[in-house]
Amino acid sequence: MKSKYDIRTDLALELKEEVVPPSGIIDGVLVDEKYYNKQALKITAVEVVNEKGSSLIRKPIGKYITIEAKYLSKNDDIYHKEIVKTLAKHLNKMIKELCNGNGKVKLLVAGLGNRNVTPDALGPLAVDNLEIDSSLSAIAPGVFGQTGMETASVIKGVISENKPDVLIVVDALAARSSKRLNQTIQLSNTGIQPGSGVGNNREEINKKNMKVPVIAIGVPTVVDAATIVNDTLTDLLEALSLSYLISDINEREKYYFVKEVMQEDLVDMYVTPKEVDETIRRIAYTISEAINLVQSGIKEEV
Amino acid sequence: MKSKYDIRTDLALELKEEVVPPSGIIDGVLVDEKYYNKQALKITAVEVVNEKGSSLIRKPIGKYITIEAKYLSKNDDIYHKEIVKTLAKHLNKMIKELCNGNGKVKLLVAGLGNRNVTPDALGPLAVDNLEIDSSLSAIAPGVFGQTGMETASVIKGVISENKPDVLIVVDALAARSSKRLNQTIQLSNTGIQPGSGVGNNREEINKKNMKVPVIAIGVPTVVDAATIVNDTLTDLLEALSLSYLISDINEREKYYFVKEVMQEDLVDMYVTPKEVDETIRRIAYTISEAINLVQSGIKEEV
Amino acid sequence: MKSKYDIRTDLALELKEEVVPPSGIIDGVLVDEKYYNKQALKITAVEVVNEKGSSLIRKPIGKYITIEAKYLSKNDDIYHKEIVKTLAKHLNKMIKELCNGNGKVKLLVAGLGNRNVTPDALGPLAVDNLEIDSSLSAIAPGVFGQTGMETASVIKGVISENKPDVLIVVDALAARSSKRLNQTIQLSNTGIQPGSGVGNNREEINKKNMKVPVIAIGVPTVVDAATIVNDTLTDLLEALSLSYLISDINEREKYYFVKEVMQEDLVDMYVTPKEVDETIRRIAYTISEAINLVQSGIKEEV
Amino acid sequence: MKSKYDIRTDLALELKEEVVPPSGIIDGVLVDEKYYNKQALKITAVEVVNEKGSSLIRKPIGKYITIEAKYLSKNDDIYHKEIVKTLAKHLNKMIKELCNGNGKVKLLVAGLGNRNVTPDALGPLAVDNLEIDSSLSAIAPGVFGQTGMETASVIKGVISENKPDVLIVVDALAARSSKRLNQTIQLSNTGIQPGSGVGNNREEINKKNMKVPVIAIGVPTVVDAATIVNDTLTDLLEALSLSYLISDINEREKYYFVKEVMQEDLVDMYVTPKEVDETIRRIAYTISEAINLVQSGIKEEV
Repeated sequence: MKSKYDIRTDLALELKEEVVPPSGIIDGVLVDEKYYNKQALKITAVEVVNEKGSSLIRKPIGKYITIEAKYLSKNDDIYHKEIVKTLAKHLNKMIKELCNGNGKVKLLVAGLGNRNVTPDALGPLAVDNLEIDSSLSAIAPGVFGQTGMETASVIKGVISENKPDVLIVVDALAARSSKRLNQTIQLSNTGIQPGSGVGNNREEINKKNMKVPVIAIGVPTVVDAATIVNDTLTDLLEALSLSYLISDINEREKYYFVKEVMQEDLVDMYVTPKEVDETIRRIAYTISEAINLVQSGIKEEV
Repeated sequence: MKSKYDIRTDLALELKEEVVPPSGIIDGVLVDEKYYNKQALKITAVEVVNEKGSSLIRKPIGKYITIEAKYLSKNDDIYHKEIVKTLAKHLNKMIKELCNGNGKVKLLVAGLGNRNVTPDALGPLAVDNLEIDSSLSAIAPGVFGQTGMETASVIKGVISENKPDVLIVVDALAARSSKRLNQTIQLSNTGIQPGSGVGNNREEINKKNMKVPVIAIGVPTVVDAATIVNDTLTDLLEALSLSYLISDINEREKYYFVKEVMQEDLVDMYVTPKEVDETIRRIAYTISEAINLVQSGIKEEV
Repeated sequence: MKSKYDIRTDLALELKEEVVPPSGIIDGVLVDEKYYNKQALKITAVEVVNEKGSSLIRKPIGKYITIEAKYLSKNDDIYHKEIVKTLAKHLNKMIKELCNGNGKVKLLVAGLGNRNVTPDALGPLAVDNLEIDSSLSAIAPGVFGQTGMETASVIKGVISENKPDVLIVVDALAARSSKRLNQTIQLSNTGIQPGSGVGNNREEINKKNMKVPVIAIGVPTVVDAATIVNDTLTDLLEALSLSYLISDINEREKYYFVKEVMQEDLVDMYVTPKEVDETIRRIAYTISEAINLVQSGIKEEV
Repeated sequence: MKSKYDIRTDLALELKEEVVPPSGIIDGVLVDEKYYNKQALKITAVEVVNEKGSSLIRKPIGKYITIEAKYLSKNDDIYHKEIVKTLAKHLNKMIKELCNGNGKVKLLVAGLGNRNVTPDALGPLAVDNLEIDSSLSAIAPGVFGQTGMETASVIKGVISENKPDVLIVVDALAARSSKRLNQTIQLSNTGIQPGSGVGNNREEINKKNMKVPVIAIGVPTVVDAATIVNDTLTDLLEALSLSYLISDINEREKYYFVKEVMQEDLVDMYVTPKEVDETIRRIAYTISEAINLVQSGIKEEV
């Protein structure tokens, strides 16, 4: 489905931005934006309601809630507690929608990614902080290079034995814009493609394959090297008053050129901020706290 | 099956020692001992051939090969290479026996234990060093306290999806004698009870439960606190010329007293050497190298 | 100073208990006990005021504040926040006393111990969580086996270059009683002997050697194997109605026998609870939060 | 000295390439290239012999030996053993030159970088594998963000107390060309600027500051985001037949434009290969083995 030359992003928000027409209305896609906390928190709900919308923004039908939190990577307890609550509220709502309002659910959390590659460690780190009990189990299945098995197949096996009501996957994502790195949390009810963060495309982890509803919590932690080049190129040509050279090619064609021209070894590289370790740790903790909060609510309902 | 007061050991060798009569012959248990490398390497093959033997030494019917390697925890490359070859040879033979001589097998290695508790990290560390490919996959499933799921059920699920021909589990064990810690490798074709190393008994990981043959590679890294007390007590009463006090109670009864009398909080404690981190890392590497060696042989046969 | 047969504990509280006479008064040692939070928190201030007291309880002249917190290893945020505040209050007071009331001090925190041995990782883990800034620097100097250098000499070098006003060392300790493991924080103004937790005695880290005042924050995470044996022995003889056998030897003599009789390899072993990883992580976090709290107070005063 | 717009590389080899004239001769810089192992190993010795050479290639006077090893990131034991021997030979020679042929030297190895950021963990990982003894000590001093102290000042303090004859620093570097990542080892006798790999420039670690000779072993593991953009830009304009647009600006001016134009947040980003974890671990091991080999030779000489 995804072509080699698609601009790499896992954020519905960014895919939407790419195709939004002057009218602001995309057929089959509902968008709702809200600001909180003096603009320090923006929540965008993107809902893909039909196949038309799905093919336009190239995301499966479903809900995508994006929390843009300016200070997500900062060490600010009060701000993080607000994010925890916000994330927990939306996560809780999504669980209830998927389970027909049933609050008495058994969750399995899968922390995707490679614990030993800092920007990819978000999922495993989030799993480390969970308060495991009879209604919350968790696994960090590792990546293909570590296990020799598709992540999807490991999780499928675990589900078949442990029979959760909902699977929550936590994963590092790739963003289109370096400005969104470590400042954005995407919550969706459509599942995920593991390895899209820093690796290759793998079997999808969604309800169809997993046999249980799948909620994905993702945070963009890397940008594709080609994306960075592409961005700078535009700015550069502008600065050189050469914009006219590319005025008649669209964004995707431009990206195509960049990718074609890039040295082959760069294609397998990613770009990430220098202070990535503290940031990833902090955001993983915030996500796990939100899941713990939802879980303690679930227990009370039981 | 195991009672609360059984003396804690996972080594067939030690269970055999406990019950061996003056004749040296245990009904239903075949024992073969060989020395190599000027006594620095001793290999004992214990084979439990029938139910009688099984109930006597309280181990399932099957083969238990124990490699006692005096310098296993030492940093000696040449010595370790010898251990790698020895272990690989026996492992290879066991795989062939279990697969009817078929050399073209697909292996799944499960590194049991808790990566964050040093003497329990043997399994996860061994998995880290494996050379994963199409005929060797691996997983470190974590422990119940981390996942909320029985290790056996996680592995069962992974097997159901990935269909290996043989499961190899690597685990830290408990020994009866502190002298065997980090100097002994046990290889068996009967599976394992996860958590016996530093935790509680869990569902067995054996052919019956896993649906594929199971080979267990274990190394004793801890001793039960009660065992240490028991050992010292005997020596102490002897030193005080009080041995007569316990002359008419057997080893198991003595252990019973110790366990009864011990402060409750001690029962959940383990004893391990101070320099345990380097040792565990080195032995895990040696085990993974042996598996890699077997695997490269398997590939050549293909 | 310390003999081979001294009962191993780093807690002034336990050393005091050993020598306290029926009168309850030890010459040269002032003791003050207070209970808080419905007995869930006990604070004992032991002050050694002169050489006589020092030789009696075998601790340098100075203050030892012991926080006994029953639920220290439990995952209870509210309880931990109380411990953070309590520890911060006493730490702050101690800093001011050492710096003549000067609130504008530069702190260096040294997290002692081996990051790779779980019960010894307390210090390095505490350092990981600190909020480093211009008035708070930190180092995890590693242990002799990792660096080939005495911890004391590494810290001395760092101090000579970075000139803090106070050195705070965080370290894992050994306790006499397994009941105090992971439930006790000792704060003292007399420094520390690195390696006393799980290793050998090394050069002392105190004001005399470091040239700046030294505050030590320690938590007992291990018990000496000999101590466990000794404890159980007493209980056992009692259970066997044989207490009369040891009625005329004192505690220290009994320990002497145990240590003499113990197998040599046991002397280098330690005893620690099975669930040690989560516990250590939680307590390290609590200690670092207390230091961060003190530090933010110091910054406000500046 | 270094300007904001210098093209970022820590490799003398690349700096030399930038300024080498058609004659191939750079004033004050001696260059010697040799190929081994059917071209799989290339060793370039760059010697900066005077101030003129130093200012031309912007590197201090001294020797820079670059080992370009095509398969350095591959899991090939035999190839790695060759690298170990090659590196050990050159390291040994450099030590002798710095110590007037004295083979009886005491080494201190400092593993620079942040253990928690994968491409920056080279130094700390190398230190983990060293065989510490009385003539080889080691430290992983952490980075400024972790300690609040300049790496140079921490090492200086350690040196003042422990008095080694030579300091060896191991560090991750930045390269100009993504093709050199994880395939190149640079050995130099001029010291290093910590943080140049993935951070900011800090105080230099050289003989002048450290008071002992400093040997630096570095491996490029990251490329500056601006460098990637710059490279691709050139290729792109060529592909678009627009090379004439930049035909009259030199490499450095082009880089200047890119850096000016780049979004501010990109300046603090680095580019690294996706499979970086295994690679770094392997190269760190190879470096530590080379140091261990030199060290065992030193002991024999004693």
